[in-house]
Amino acid sequence: MSQPLPNQDKMEKLVSLCRRRGFIFPSSEIYGGLSSCWDYGSLGVELKRNIKQAWWQAIVQQRGDFVGLDTSILMHPQVWEASGHLKGFSDPMVDCKECQQRWRTDELEGEVCPSCGGELTEPRQFNLMFKTFMGPVEDDASIVYLRPETAQGIFVNFQNVVNTTRKKLPFGIAQIGKSFRNEITTGNFIFRSREFEQMEIEYFVKPGTDEEWFEYWLKERMDWYIGLGIKKENLELRKHDRGELAHYARECFDINYNFPMGWSELEGIANRGDFDLVQHAEHSGKGLSYLDEETNEHIVPYIIEPSAGVDRSVLAFLCEAYDEEPDKDEIRTVLHLHPSLAPYKAAVLPLSKKEPLIQIADEIHAELRRCWMVSYDLAQSIGRRYRRQDEIGTPYCITIDFQSLEDKQVTIRERDSMKQLRIPISELNNTLAAKLGGEAFEILPPGGSHWLGF
Amino acid sequence: MSQPLPNQDKMEKLVSLCRRRGFIFPSSEIYGGLSSCWDYGSLGVELKRNIKQAWWQAIVQQRGDFVGLDTSILMHPQVWEASGHLKGFSDPMVDCKECQQRWRTDELEGEVCPSCGGELTEPRQFNLMFKTFMGPVEDDASIVYLRPETAQGIFVNFQNVVNTTRKKLPFGIAQIGKSFRNEITTGNFIFRSREFEQMEIEYFVKPGTDEEWFEYWLKERMDWYIGLGIKKENLELRKHDRGELAHYARECFDINYNFPMGWSELEGIANRGDFDLVQHAEHSGKGLSYLDEETNEHIVPYIIEPSAGVDRSVLAFLCEAYDEEPDKDEIRTVLHLHPSLAPYKAAVLPLSKKEPLIQIADEIHAELRRCWMVSYDLAQSIGRRYRRQDEIGTPYCITIDFQSLEDKQVTIRERDSMKQLRIPISELNNTLAAKLGGEAFEILPPGGSHWLGF
Repeated sequence: MSQPLPNQDKMEKLVSLCRRRGFIFPSSEIYGGLSSCWDYGSLGVELKRNIKQAWWQAIVQQRGDFVGLDTSILMHPQVWEASGHLKGFSDPMVDCKECQQRWRTDELEGEVCPSCGGELTEPRQFNLMFKTFMGPVEDDASIVYLRPETAQGIFVNFQNVVNTTRKKLPFGIAQIGKSFRNEITTGNFIFRSREFEQMEIEYFVKPGTDEEWFEYWLKERMDWYIGLGIKKENLELRKHDRGELAHYARECFDINYNFPMGWSELEGIANRGDFDLVQHAEHSGKGLSYLDEETNEHIVPYIIEPSAGVDRSVLAFLCEAYDEEPDKDEIRTVLHLHPSLAPYKAAVLPLSKKEPLIQIADEIHAELRRCWMVSYDLAQSIGRRYRRQDEIGTPYCITIDFQSLEDKQVTIRERDSMKQLRIPISELNNTLAAKLGGEAFEILPPGGSHWLGF
Repeated sequence: MSQPLPNQDKMEKLVSLCRRRGFIFPSSEIYGGLSSCWDYGSLGVELKRNIKQAWWQAIVQQRGDFVGLDTSILMHPQVWEASGHLKGFSDPMVDCKECQQRWRTDELEGEVCPSCGGELTEPRQFNLMFKTFMGPVEDDASIVYLRPETAQGIFVNFQNVVNTTRKKLPFGIAQIGKSFRNEITTGNFIFRSREFEQMEIEYFVKPGTDEEWFEYWLKERMDWYIGLGIKKENLELRKHDRGELAHYARECFDINYNFPMGWSELEGIANRGDFDLVQHAEHSGKGLSYLDEETNEHIVPYIIEPSAGVDRSVLAFLCEAYDEEPDKDEIRTVLHLHPSLAPYKAAVLPLSKKEPLIQIADEIHAELRRCWMVSYDLAQSIGRRYRRQDEIGTPYCITIDFQSLEDKQVTIRERDSMKQLRIPISELNNTLAAKLGGEAFEILPPGGSHWLGF
C-alpha cells in the first residue's frame, strides 16, 4: 500500500475520477449545473443500487423482524405540523438592506453584509422545506411540501403496518427514498446536497427496553459498514450533547466517517421515544398504538431510528476504496470496493480483436451477464485495460488469449492481489459465484426454467 | 378457473385486497389522504421492487448494449425551456367568476360553471409541472420544477455517457425514477397519480435505421410483459394518429393493457427523431453528437423511447394475477403472480406451535431468508394459512408437521396447482432455487465467503 494521500488531494482526485469514469456528474451540467444536485452515471447508479440492495437485504430480507415501506414524497401538510417541521425546521437568516443578499446568521462574522458592507435586517426564520402547490390554484390552501425526511412516511403508516402484517414488538419498518432540504450551505461534493436519498429504519420497542435496543443498533449499524469494507478506525460514534439534541430525541449518536474533509456524519441513530406516534395521534385524532397480547394493554412503542444517507454512504465507500499504489515505475489507481458493491463484478477482455477470440469472449460475456453486471473491453493493451478496471473497482478480469482456443481455459486476474489463475471456461460461473459469495440472480425466462448448474 | 369477474367488481376487490393485505395505502391516510398520492405497504414495496429489478436486469444487465443512469428530480429550469415543457406541457383551464372554482376546458359540457352556474373566464393555459423555489429567496429567478419525466435527465447527459462509456451506436440508456405531474384529473387507483415512477429507455440509433429499431422495440417490450405473465390477449398496440402525436414525436404507439376500467396505456413507445438532442444543443450551446468512427462524421442519433410506468405495471400485474376460483364449497382468492414478482417467494408454516416444530421452522426460515424474501405464519389452521398466502401470491408454502421430526422432510405446496410434494429439508434450497429460476442472492458476510452449496 502507498502512503496515505493528503486529504484535499484525495477529494479532488475522487471527484475527478467520478466525473471522468462516469460515477457522478453535476446535474444539468450542459446548462452550467444546478447548485448542489448530482446525477449518477453508468457506474454510480450501479454502486448506489448495490449499496441500497445490501442494506435492504441485511435489514428487510434477512433479519425476520422487519417489513419494508415506500411512501410518497408529497405528503399531507398536517404531517409537518404534527412532526414539528413547519415550526422548527428552519435556519435564522438576515437580508442585506443594500444589495438584498440573504445570509445565514450563524455564518456571519460581523454585523454588516459580507458582500457589500450594507446594513442587515433582524434575523428571520427560514424554513428548509421545499414547498409547491398541488391542484390548479396557487394559494395557501394548496401548499404541499417535498418531504425533508422519509421517517414521517413510516410514522403515519404505523397503524396500517401493524394491522396488515401483525408484527409483534420489537419490530422494524425500513424505507429507502429521496428527501429534499433547501439547505443554504451545501457542498463537499455529494456529502450535503438539496436532493438526497435516505435509508431509514424505525425500530419499534416496548418502553423501558429502548436504551438496550439503542445500544444494539449502534453496534449493528457500525458492523454493517465494517462488513462492507469500511475500516473500524475510520468510524467513530459521537454522542449529541443536551443542547444539540433535536426536539424529538431522548438520545442521539452520529456514526461519523473519516471523510477527506474531516470526521462527518454518515448516519444518525436517535432514540425518539414516543414523540412521533403521540404527535400524530393528537393531530390526526387517530389512535396509534399497539395491543400487547400478553397484558391486553394498548401501548405506544418507543422508536429507535438508525437513519443513513445513501449519497454519504456512496461517498464513504468511494473514499475508503480509493488508493494509489506504486506498481513498478507507475502509480496504480484502484478502488478496493467490496465485491458486493462494485459496479461490475467482472470484465471480459479478449487479448486481440481476431475473430475466434472475439467469438469466445462474446459467448462468455453473454453467459456471465445473465447473472451479473459484467463489463467488456477491447481497446488498447491488456495492461491498460486492467488499469481501467482497477480504477472502477472491478474485482475480476477474465482474459481470453490464443491459448484459450486450444485449452478452453481463461485467465482470471484478481483486482487487489493482481494474482492470476487459469481455469476452464466451463467452470467460470462456479468460480465467480464462489468468489462473489453466492450472488446469482436471474429472472426466469418465459415458458420454462433455466438453471445455470450451480 | 372461474368465470371472469365483472370489471367494476374486480377493481373494487383489488383495491380492497391491496388495502387489507398491505400492498397499497392512500398517502397520509390518517390525515384524510393526499389526493392521488399512494404509499406502498410491506407487500407493495416488494412487488414494485421486483418489477423494477426485472426491468433493470432485462435491459441494463443482460443485453450488453445498455448503461443505466440515475439523475436528479430537480433540474435546471432551462431544461424545460429546451424540451418544450415550459411552453407546451399544459391544459387549458377556465375560472368561474362567481365561485372561483377552476375547470379543465375539455371537460366542460356547457359554458357556465358546473358548480354554481356562474360566468366563466376565457381559457388560460395551466402548466402541469410542479414548481418550487431553490435557495433562500422566493422569486422568479429561484423557480425550479420537479421533473415531469425522467427522459430529459438522459438527454442532457448524452455527451457525458458517450464520453465515459464509449458505447457505439446503437446503444441505450435506461433510468428508473420518480416524476411529478400536477394532473387536474386523476384516478383509477394508482393508474394516474400526481407522483409516479417511470422506467424509461432512450435508445440511440443511426438516422435511417430508426423505423426498424422502432419495430424492434414494440415487439421487445410486448414480450417483456408477456414473459412476466401478462396474457397476450390483454395487450394491444395502439398507434397515435397525426393529430394526437406529441410535438417531439415522429411516430408513437401505446402498449395498452385491458385494465378493469378499459384498455389504457401501460407504456408509450415513441420515435423522437433528433428533436431532443438538437433542442438541448441549441439551448445549451454545447455540441451533442456522436463521432461515427467508420465515416469520421459527427452525427446526431435518432432516439427510440420505450417509456413504461412502474405504478401502472404494478396495477396491470395485479389485475392479471387476481382470480377467484371455486374450491370445494368456497371461493379461493389467489394472485397468480410470476414467481419473480411475488413479494414472498415462500412461506414457512409450522403445523403446530409445539416447541420442536417451531425450532425446525425457525431454522428453515432463517436459512431460506438468506437468499429470498420468505414469510412465516403461525396463526390459525393450515388451510387458512394457505389461503392467506394464495391471496398475496406466495408461490410456495413449506409445511413442517410432526412427521418432519421423524423423517426430516417437509411438504412443499404449489400455489397455482395446489399440488403438494414431500422433500428432505436438506434439499429445500436446491428445490426452491430450481423452481424459482435461479434466484439466489446473498451479500458476502464480513470476513469470509458463505456459499449455500448450489
